Amino acid sequence: MDALKGTAQYQVIKVRGQEILKTEEPVVEEIPLTIYLNGKELVTMLAAAGEEEYLVTGFLATEGIIQDVKDIATLTVDMQQGVIHATTVSGETAAEKMFLKRYLTACCGKGRSAFYFANDVLTAKIVNTEIKLTPQEAMAYSEMLEAASETFRLTGGVHGGALAAEGKLVCWSQDIGRHNVFDKLYGRCLKEGISTQDKVLVFSGRVSSEIILKVSKMNISVIIARSAPTSLALDMAEELGVTVIGFARDERLNVYTHPERIVG
Amino acid sequence: MDALKGTAQYQVIKVRGQEILKTEEPVVEEIPLTIYLNGKELVTMLAAAGEEEYLVTGFLATEGIIQDVKDIATLTVDMQQGVIHATTVSGETAAEKMFLKRYLTACCGKGRSAFYFANDVLTAKIVNTEIKLTPQEAMAYSEMLEAASETFRLTGGVHGGALAAEGKLVCWSQDIGRHNVFDKLYGRCLKEGISTQDKVLVFSGRVSSEIILKVSKMNISVIIARSAPTSLALDMAEELGVTVIGFARDERLNVYTHPERIVG
Repeated sequence: MDALKGTAQYQVIKVRGQEILKTEEPVVEEIPLTIYLNGKELVTMLAAAGEEEYLVTGFLATEGIIQDVKDIATLTVDMQQGVIHATTVSGETAAEKMFLKRYLTACCGKGRSAFYFANDVLTAKIVNTEIKLTPQEAMAYSEMLEAASETFRLTGGVHGGALAAEGKLVCWSQDIGRHNVFDKLYGRCLKEGISTQDKVLVFSGRVSSEIILKVSKMNISVIIARSAPTSLALDMAEELGVTVIGFARDERLNVYTHPERIVG
Repeated sequence: MDALKGTAQYQVIKVRGQEILKTEEPVVEEIPLTIYLNGKELVTMLAAAGEEEYLVTGFLATEGIIQDVKDIATLTVDMQQGVIHATTVSGETAAEKMFLKRYLTACCGKGRSAFYFANDVLTAKIVNTEIKLTPQEAMAYSEMLEAASETFRLTGGVHGGALAAEGKLVCWSQDIGRHNVFDKLYGRCLKEGISTQDKVLVFSGRVSSEIILKVSKMNISVIIARSAPTSLALDMAEELGVTVIGFARDERLNVYTHPERIVG
């Protein structure tokens, strides 16, 4: 059997109770990708093969290094070396220097105290959309996401995420890393001019604070996840105006924050 | 109901088919933790509350910044600010400077080409243990891990990992991040003098390359995971001598690499 793109066949000994079977199975391909930005090493990511340009574009946007796809001057993907060289029109920015630097507030308590990275203080924003949806629509999107990923069915090794509207998945990405799924989706939207504020996001994985930050930066106001949220994710979602739906599967779901968008 | 330590109660609207219920549910607590090493900001991690000293100790060890718990001069945890200050006996090391720097080999092909971070080239090692186990033992450890985590049962928001030997789980950690689970386990072993080479590791999550690197650094030769591996993880495991068992649940499992340790 030919392997699905982004997967590779590996030898495996399968044990099923007393039965033992030697065979081959598809495994998701993981690759290290190092981003050099304006000639300097920025970060090494581990990602599923595919959609590398979207991944880098979305990553630079969520980090506030670019505001728009036009801010990228050049983008060269060298998959042989696992290296991506990007240059920006403006050259080195403050966001680039602040990358991964902790934002420590002097005061505790309210008002963006939940933000831990300096760049997030600048780029996270309160979402503002007119979206409403029914629990049944949310459950349907979750089922569509589950059905969309052949790689997940074959390998069990990827997370999937999609933008959805009007009863359909509009675009869809997958990766071995939860965060990469969002960067790929965001990069695709930026490059292809897909609007985000009129769509909801469906996600297979757990919702941690970093996921809420990415959703808010995309100006998406509803995330429907098949798994659990964390406390910090819910605190941020409350503050940023994001509706968090968790455990959306098997005709069930939990609405944690901003339930005013759920109707019917 | 009092919340379990490391969880917090959140308002939730539960939809079950046509039924709607407004209630409270426990959610796992996520906290940002910034490590300052010898006075310099090293990294900000997002972690589940608890075992912070183990987390930092294990992290510094897997990064090659310390070889032994005695290499840490001071370790101060400030949970109010989410900051941990560590100083090392030796002061700043090469590993500290190389942290997160990509290791790009000039030649492609064989021989540690799979290593992408400079520190891993120094700290990853070929495991060498006498461990053997039966598929039934591996399945039993997987069930024990599943039963161990009350936080997972309550919140669905954590990964769990344990060291196991002689039919029992010896020590056990949990976190919202897959990597953090391993750092907490490793830190505990270092601080409490628990030997690793006579134990196997059981893990709830997916096995990516970073997980195999952490396992090899702990000199553990068998990982039993309830979820899927990636291609790069299997390539590294092959090279480093690690037996990877995946999908270990419901009386089933897959042996991917180094099956010579599986007997019976």
